[in-house]
Amino acid sequence: MRTVVVTDPPRADAASARRLGELGTSTVHEAQGRTGYLGPTIRPVWSGARTAGTAVTALCWPGDNAMIHVAVEQCREGDVLVVATTSPCTDGLFGELFATALKVRGVSGVVLGCGVRDVAELRALGFPAWSAAVSAQGSVKNTLGAVNVPVVLGGQSIRPGDVIVGDDDGVVVVPRSTVGSILDAAEARTEKEARNRTRFGQGELGLDVYGMRERLADLGLEYVAHDDLEEE
Amino acid sequence: MRTVVVTDPPRADAASARRLGELGTSTVHEAQGRTGYLGPTIRPVWSGARTAGTAVTALCWPGDNAMIHVAVEQCREGDVLVVATTSPCTDGLFGELFATALKVRGVSGVVLGCGVRDVAELRALGFPAWSAAVSAQGSVKNTLGAVNVPVVLGGQSIRPGDVIVGDDDGVVVVPRSTVGSILDAAEARTEKEARNRTRFGQGELGLDVYGMRERLADLGLEYVAHDDLEEE
Amino acid sequence: MRTVVVTDPPRADAASARRLGELGTSTVHEAQGRTGYLGPTIRPVWSGARTAGTAVTALCWPGDNAMIHVAVEQCREGDVLVVATTSPCTDGLFGELFATALKVRGVSGVVLGCGVRDVAELRALGFPAWSAAVSAQGSVKNTLGAVNVPVVLGGQSIRPGDVIVGDDDGVVVVPRSTVGSILDAAEARTEKEARNRTRFGQGELGLDVYGMRERLADLGLEYVAHDDLEEE
Amino acid sequence: MRTVVVTDPPRADAASARRLGELGTSTVHEAQGRTGYLGPTIRPVWSGARTAGTAVTALCWPGDNAMIHVAVEQCREGDVLVVATTSPCTDGLFGELFATALKVRGVSGVVLGCGVRDVAELRALGFPAWSAAVSAQGSVKNTLGAVNVPVVLGGQSIRPGDVIVGDDDGVVVVPRSTVGSILDAAEARTEKEARNRTRFGQGELGLDVYGMRERLADLGLEYVAHDDLEEE
Amino acid sequence: MRTVVVTDPPRADAASARRLGELGTSTVHEAQGRTGYLGPTIRPVWSGARTAGTAVTALCWPGDNAMIHVAVEQCREGDVLVVATTSPCTDGLFGELFATALKVRGVSGVVLGCGVRDVAELRALGFPAWSAAVSAQGSVKNTLGAVNVPVVLGGQSIRPGDVIVGDDDGVVVVPRSTVGSILDAAEARTEKEARNRTRFGQGELGLDVYGMRERLADLGLEYVAHDDLEEE
Amino acid sequence: MRTVVVTDPPRADAASARRLGELGTSTVHEAQGRTGYLGPTIRPVWSGARTAGTAVTALCWPGDNAMIHVAVEQCREGDVLVVATTSPCTDGLFGELFATALKVRGVSGVVLGCGVRDVAELRALGFPAWSAAVSAQGSVKNTLGAVNVPVVLGGQSIRPGDVIVGDDDGVVVVPRSTVGSILDAAEARTEKEARNRTRFGQGELGLDVYGMRERLADLGLEYVAHDDLEEE
Repeated sequence: MRTVVVTDPPRADAASARRLGELGTSTVHEAQGRTGYLGPTIRPVWSGARTAGTAVTALCWPGDNAMIHVAVEQCREGDVLVVATTSPCTDGLFGELFATALKVRGVSGVVLGCGVRDVAELRALGFPAWSAAVSAQGSVKNTLGAVNVPVVLGGQSIRPGDVIVGDDDGVVVVPRSTVGSILDAAEARTEKEARNRTRFGQGELGLDVYGMRERLADLGLEYVAHDDLEEE
Repeated sequence: MRTVVVTDPPRADAASARRLGELGTSTVHEAQGRTGYLGPTIRPVWSGARTAGTAVTALCWPGDNAMIHVAVEQCREGDVLVVATTSPCTDGLFGELFATALKVRGVSGVVLGCGVRDVAELRALGFPAWSAAVSAQGSVKNTLGAVNVPVVLGGQSIRPGDVIVGDDDGVVVVPRSTVGSILDAAEARTEKEARNRTRFGQGELGLDVYGMRERLADLGLEYVAHDDLEEE
Repeated sequence: MRTVVVTDPPRADAASARRLGELGTSTVHEAQGRTGYLGPTIRPVWSGARTAGTAVTALCWPGDNAMIHVAVEQCREGDVLVVATTSPCTDGLFGELFATALKVRGVSGVVLGCGVRDVAELRALGFPAWSAAVSAQGSVKNTLGAVNVPVVLGGQSIRPGDVIVGDDDGVVVVPRSTVGSILDAAEARTEKEARNRTRFGQGELGLDVYGMRERLADLGLEYVAHDDLEEE
Repeated sequence: MRTVVVTDPPRADAASARRLGELGTSTVHEAQGRTGYLGPTIRPVWSGARTAGTAVTALCWPGDNAMIHVAVEQCREGDVLVVATTSPCTDGLFGELFATALKVRGVSGVVLGCGVRDVAELRALGFPAWSAAVSAQGSVKNTLGAVNVPVVLGGQSIRPGDVIVGDDDGVVVVPRSTVGSILDAAEARTEKEARNRTRFGQGELGLDVYGMRERLADLGLEYVAHDDLEEE
Repeated sequence: MRTVVVTDPPRADAASARRLGELGTSTVHEAQGRTGYLGPTIRPVWSGARTAGTAVTALCWPGDNAMIHVAVEQCREGDVLVVATTSPCTDGLFGELFATALKVRGVSGVVLGCGVRDVAELRALGFPAWSAAVSAQGSVKNTLGAVNVPVVLGGQSIRPGDVIVGDDDGVVVVPRSTVGSILDAAEARTEKEARNRTRFGQGELGLDVYGMRERLADLGLEYVAHDDLEEE
Repeated sequence: MRTVVVTDPPRADAASARRLGELGTSTVHEAQGRTGYLGPTIRPVWSGARTAGTAVTALCWPGDNAMIHVAVEQCREGDVLVVATTSPCTDGLFGELFATALKVRGVSGVVLGCGVRDVAELRALGFPAWSAAVSAQGSVKNTLGAVNVPVVLGGQSIRPGDVIVGDDDGVVVVPRSTVGSILDAAEARTEKEARNRTRFGQGELGLDVYGMRERLADLGLEYVAHDDLEEE
């Protein structure tokens, strides 16, 4: 691994990032063709956390948060700090003091492939955080990693400057180069979902809203009344 | 797998189902001889969710929620939708639009062996839901499964029309044919627990309430004062 | 296993235990040189639970809570009940009636390496509890274990009378013989953290607060402007 | 749970069971419409184990193998013993002495939802075994369960007398009532697979053997030469 | 997701790939600065499997192996097929018939983020395979994915044409653009390891071979004779 | 953590350790009252590995094997190296070069709570090893831990000089102070098992060998002929 800090990577548009955050993880994931989701193991540290911003990435050695200290300096207003480790680690590499430092810089949140601690304090601060674990386990600062290099987290490639969206459903990444088109698709989807919500709220069925009946019949779906079933 | 939708299966008595829901998962589980519990991996999607109803079952292919669309049409007031997958899957096969459609039909909740999404919206709707995961991962509608066939979820066999009870402790199933006797047993247990709660609240010990002292002594339990222990 | 109940083990000082509880799991873990943490799998049963006290230990057979009944009698005001099982078990060996009995005795909380049930009731009672699972699965009372013997939980050795501290970050154990010195170290650390919190709140960086810049450079950390990177 | 031993349940035909065993787990699973597989967590205890027979079921309390002792007496030549526990358990409830006793009775193997021990001895005896874990952890004999009642293992319902097939791919159950038709389907599938194996061995592609090309194109699959891709 | 098949991606040099395979996973992982390892969950399907080749990638929907059929046609002599799924899946998407088809084409092996079946047959064929699970669970062919697009597997980004090396230690990926330099580094490391092996075999210690003594002392490592320890 | 190397701890008797190794993990675990087993997650790295010896312990930071280098120097003929990490870690902290160095010193094997690499080489060397994972992931040597301090591994406390026994069933620890009595108990158990093996081999049942029939009947076990069952 090249132990490097890349400075001033280009960021996606901040207003677009904010708007994607309002639309939410699931909508954005759908809007980009069901890609980019960091999976069910990256969970909000406190219920109701919601944010979006541009990624600053840190790659840490397990049990070592030196590169988070380095990454903080690279963070600007509207960024989301994204922390991966070089191998599986549940330790709490991030806590209240980091959140305090990031809030001062206007950072919008943090996403960690490892653990987090000071959960009560993060909730009190209202600092949005997602992680794979909660752990009080403390860190050393002995081994180098990298900042603002591409990382893989939750099965997704994340590059510095990509948009990160997080809410109760988890976290999704939008590549910087596609933010504009994905935002358009997400807005369109949101409008369509609003229309569908109205229809579902009036008692319509997905079978009709999505025109599924004929296709399911073609695939061979049978309907049998319970009383006509031969009991096994 | 027979790709079939069974219509109009007989349901357990609705009032009995509701009352079992008031008594709660742990009490009902005890009342049926410590059976029927779907285990610790099926968790409430939002804290405080509580419901009961009669099962409508859907069996889905992983990553595919076509059969949930089919199942919604089979759901009536007082049902609980139960979704199993043919192999392990964490994808969010169920979300807000389904909840909207089910609420309109008077459905009491959903239990999923896979994932759920739109957690914030489900909480806001107050729609009770239990699942094995939270995941924004979206679904296709390409592969058939079955509706209202017996399914296995959380190590329990569930037949359409069985009673499903869910709360913060998880989910328990009561076979339709035994609902009456289990309700009686659960009521009796609840009364007994109330009496025991009073006794425990007055400082009595389980050793006495349950008459355990003699039996434990017979099994060979020794009491040794710490100061008489030879330190290892 | 010797099936024994050790009575009247010496306890750590109660006031020190309480104060360690106010300082919290992560601080105490750091104060004892990053040791004693029970790890990320032992989680609070309800968000916001916080306590501290002196350990009364119970070692149970899987699926069997007889020894918890025995242990309750050994608990005094200010104790925390610690329950380990002889092999992995998720069953809900502890619930509301035990909590009621323990509250009467002034017990400060419970930590379980297995499951817990009656989550809603524990939350309503405000009885602090940590566990590895939530499970409605009920217990028998057929097999002996031990009370107030040393146990291992979450990878930590716990002896009766040790101090147990729990909050949203999980649980830490402080050996009885070191409580005084660890409390001093924890107080010192809390003061230092307060000073650091102020500095971070004023925009200082960990790189400077902890004097890391030179060491990281010595280790070989490079800074490269993004625009000077050769794109892969 | 009713603590009962059901004696002399009807068994599926022994010769059919043996033949299903020769055809193997994956073929039988396919032949019954991709159902009945006990999943990837039930693994052979030694590589190359292979068997088939009629199920005798035992339902045990965690950490307790009393009901396996009871079940042995119910086993006949050509049976496979199937052991489930009432809640998750990794303990080694089964070992060499049980295997010795079962071999004498002509039993064909064992499938356990918990752990197994004496792995080296089982391999030396050539006694086929599948389990969810290997564990030396010993058992008590204090709590009743049931024998020859329906159990759920690996997400499948198993009734006494059903056919159990196991090999390196894991274990599949065939309901007794369908053994004849499933055997026919499995033989047909085996013949078809042999023909396909020949075709694949001659360099044909699944796209042609299964006639997939047109359907994939209809679904929208594009082919793009790498050199025509715009590089991201 | 763009449902596309990219044809004729450039491959890394075949001879270099073969040589990296001889050097093995752990050596190659070290040679590229401890990066590229697919982690401990991707395991050889049969003990002793060993291979290397250039990646052809397939991205499948869970429970659906249509894209593996498509990918086979894109495979050439010396390739290794790499299969990822869009969400977690343990199903056996790959088995003996695929292996037969790939062997005819001279393909060197397969790496799957999901499950595999026909384990006994793969071992008998000597077809090298790595996977996250063994599962007999069968697949449908209903949903599109992509072939020869970049995928993430085991926390690593893999591009078509990259070198894949697998042995009993698991799988490592070497980006195509760096194969030459990594091969040089791996050869150098192998020579150095041979020298060190000789030294270790003569009784030298890592403390001396790697010159660690002074640094560990500087870090504060103490040596205390057991008899000088104050017993806790 | 005190970063200390304790030299020359007293060891258990070497001949007793060897004999315990011949008796095997499961027998020794039973002989000490079903205690001391490191659980089902610590598995042999190669099938058939078997050893016993006196523990030299190393406590490492995750991702860092500096203390294994230190520990090697403390190992003597007949020792088994036991490696724990301060938090969960799957990295391959141990491989072929360490095994070479330990073999020269007459060390009997290694047990790791983390990962191991160079599996093929360890098997070829015949060096017995148990671990929680196989991983090629490499290590740094930057952070201190301790050698020959008590550690917890697999839920068991291990002190330097204790006896470690490993085979295909996993690993058990015998405290040094009890080795003599446990060896006697294990020999007695082995003789009893031999007698029981003979009886089981002659067709006797555990119900009779262990005199279980009356007790099970007292507990309420019923026998019901299948044909007398009312079918559900």
